[in-house]
Amino acid sequence: MTYTTELTADHKQFLDELFQDGVKYDKPSLRVYESDASNIRGEVLAVVRPTCVEQVSEFMRWADAERIPVHPRGRGTSLSGGCVPTVPGIVVSMLGMDRILDISETDFVATIEPGVNTVAFQQECEKHNLFYPPDPASSKATSVGGNVVTCAGGLRAVKYGVTRDYVLGCDVVVPGGKILSFGGRTQKDVVGLDMTRFMVGSEGSLGILTKLYLKLIPKSEGTASLLVGYESLDAALQSMGKVFAAGILPCAVEFMNETVLDILKQTGGHPWPDSVNSLLLFQVDGSAETVSMNIEQLSNQIDDALWRMMGTTSDEENELWGYRRSVSSASYVLGPDRIGGDMAVPRGQILQAVRRFESLAAQNGKRLIAFGHAGDGNIHANLHYDASDPDDAKRTRKAHHEMDEAVLEFGGSLSGEHGVGCLKNVGLQLGKDEHELMLKVRGLFDPNGILNPNKGY
Amino acid sequence: MTYTTELTADHKQFLDELFQDGVKYDKPSLRVYESDASNIRGEVLAVVRPTCVEQVSEFMRWADAERIPVHPRGRGTSLSGGCVPTVPGIVVSMLGMDRILDISETDFVATIEPGVNTVAFQQECEKHNLFYPPDPASSKATSVGGNVVTCAGGLRAVKYGVTRDYVLGCDVVVPGGKILSFGGRTQKDVVGLDMTRFMVGSEGSLGILTKLYLKLIPKSEGTASLLVGYESLDAALQSMGKVFAAGILPCAVEFMNETVLDILKQTGGHPWPDSVNSLLLFQVDGSAETVSMNIEQLSNQIDDALWRMMGTTSDEENELWGYRRSVSSASYVLGPDRIGGDMAVPRGQILQAVRRFESLAAQNGKRLIAFGHAGDGNIHANLHYDASDPDDAKRTRKAHHEMDEAVLEFGGSLSGEHGVGCLKNVGLQLGKDEHELMLKVRGLFDPNGILNPNKGY
Repeated sequence: MTYTTELTADHKQFLDELFQDGVKYDKPSLRVYESDASNIRGEVLAVVRPTCVEQVSEFMRWADAERIPVHPRGRGTSLSGGCVPTVPGIVVSMLGMDRILDISETDFVATIEPGVNTVAFQQECEKHNLFYPPDPASSKATSVGGNVVTCAGGLRAVKYGVTRDYVLGCDVVVPGGKILSFGGRTQKDVVGLDMTRFMVGSEGSLGILTKLYLKLIPKSEGTASLLVGYESLDAALQSMGKVFAAGILPCAVEFMNETVLDILKQTGGHPWPDSVNSLLLFQVDGSAETVSMNIEQLSNQIDDALWRMMGTTSDEENELWGYRRSVSSASYVLGPDRIGGDMAVPRGQILQAVRRFESLAAQNGKRLIAFGHAGDGNIHANLHYDASDPDDAKRTRKAHHEMDEAVLEFGGSLSGEHGVGCLKNVGLQLGKDEHELMLKVRGLFDPNGILNPNKGY
Repeated sequence: MTYTTELTADHKQFLDELFQDGVKYDKPSLRVYESDASNIRGEVLAVVRPTCVEQVSEFMRWADAERIPVHPRGRGTSLSGGCVPTVPGIVVSMLGMDRILDISETDFVATIEPGVNTVAFQQECEKHNLFYPPDPASSKATSVGGNVVTCAGGLRAVKYGVTRDYVLGCDVVVPGGKILSFGGRTQKDVVGLDMTRFMVGSEGSLGILTKLYLKLIPKSEGTASLLVGYESLDAALQSMGKVFAAGILPCAVEFMNETVLDILKQTGGHPWPDSVNSLLLFQVDGSAETVSMNIEQLSNQIDDALWRMMGTTSDEENELWGYRRSVSSASYVLGPDRIGGDMAVPRGQILQAVRRFESLAAQNGKRLIAFGHAGDGNIHANLHYDASDPDDAKRTRKAHHEMDEAVLEFGGSLSGEHGVGCLKNVGLQLGKDEHELMLKVRGLFDPNGILNPNKGY
């Protein structure tokens, strides 16, 4: 594709008229839009901040005609470079469209704009005694629109599924400016191809979402959590298998490998004995009466644990989840920079996959931080290093690449929830014919390739 | 499109060599393949019965080159004419590919061929203490592949979602013969466009499924049901609202309108008093200890019912569900022929929609049988008539058409679970641009339009 990579005076006049105060060109204002949580950087020509679908439509008509690359952006939390301009272009910040339009207690449906912050939205639902389950670990920072375009997962996916399972409909503006509507406020709708879910996880490659219809469910009365310590990850995952085999479906099951426990020891202040080398963290939910019964049942299945701590009040649960949340920051004792993985493997393969990744890390002189969503086989496999040490950086990249190759041997996926962005080598995973077909579909939506070029797939 | 609508001797020689005994041309053998549960009829040139993906691939290469229409078929239970040849062509019966290849207790994943019968598959899962939730009411008769291509819903959708939510991956043969693989055995996978779910509900318009990877969950220990009688549907649905507002998520909530109760009275033998004019049927599931607690909690919310009957044993539950299952056959007292609807509306609109449909039926001298999945707003709205009475048939079709138009005024969908097939007027529901885009995508998969022509969308 050939793109326009500089803005002329005419271009700027158009943008000024369309967005008024909602457009910026100056370097200091643009800096934040050059990158996201991946720390990769690209070149931004301008950032625009639409406040209504008509502006998005008019902008997309123009950008397509002018062949100007467009990089839609939510709250910029992508760990895969999903918001980074790979080609100089205009960043479209969707944070000006962050209204919750409606939360219906009778339909169990919310209608929102994509820029809404995930936790703010969840809290608003709870005021109506309703529950929006998707909970990426970074939900305090993310936008729902960002969650939708990456099909974000999260802690509760094992019971409640992922973002895809809660999107009932959407409005989307495609290159050329057409505003398309798919699905709507019904829980079921099988008329025509399922374009609604096709948008989910499409990483901003097909259009810009401007409205979302989301499914809500009744809010559970309560939750309880159980943190359980084991001698090894082997023992922990064997124990988890017994819980599932007993017909118990927790809403979350997190695991942490021996390296995580080692760094948590170094950062101190934890209640478990030194013999504990691996942790599982379970959460169950339900009515006030059933939740304590459920956590007891779960606890009874775990007869082979070294140590356990139950949390039934909100404060007690917060303490337990605090240990899980502390992993990410504590990991920096292993190095100031990080390459992260979010591979998914079939659930029964977690132990073998983690052991294989650890071995690949060790062969490159690295230690592997492995934790994540054991209930759905989603492994956060992080390597820390010092970017100013070329040898360390090289060995880390090599180990990371070898892990990506290895995950496919387990029938896994390079990404369970972060998305491909501009970081992952999809060619390793997707077959040639399958990849080509995806690109052809993309070309139907975006014949001039202006949307998120070189990203996603 | 221009199609080949007669088979030459060369064509037959090719088919004979490829399928041996698995091809039929004689009228008596073909008759069953001319129709499905919709009773619409089409013309069949031959039926083939592949037993492996290689046969499907070679057949699709040939059929595409020869421009011969192809009509994939599972167990022929479509109520929308989804299996009816709208253009003379070859029916591909997938019942020769009905093997359960693997059920993994550690991965919670089943790998099956699409011709597997739904209930047989569910029973096999239960032997492994696993649960495949999608349960179209006709699951004893359907194939899983048929469920997937229509995104079948069912009774438990309110808690467990629909077929889409359980498809992790698939192999599909597209016109031209390429075998494509999407997704796989991982619970999460966000690499590339979500082609797996795009196949779900595509009504055989994009390719022929040859393998399915399905998500399973732990099997609940038990269930309990509650049949509740009300003075009116108004009272019943108000009561249901209180259950959801109390944070209770049953696995099924069925409703029946006053006409249903009237015909059940006529067919006799029911335990509720004459004052009952509408019924709700709830089911909850969970562990042995929690399930009785859950049904009690639910019962406590329903303080405005005229009558109730609880089922906690399998026999007791069967009795309660027997009344629900009897509706379909009992309805024939209103006429020997039927036009059925499976509209979906936003959940809070069920009462208004049913009342509107009843009024449209009455204006045409008809009575409306309305029952269905109250928890997800999916209404089975059936009209009975005598096809040999032209005036009755005309009024019935008119009422049905008016109901389809009305459902859209409620923000609803013409089909919640049966699919469009060749019966529904999708132009009423889909926007012009949206419909065109779907047809363009279809054209990418099937440039010569050989797959299920004129069906779906």
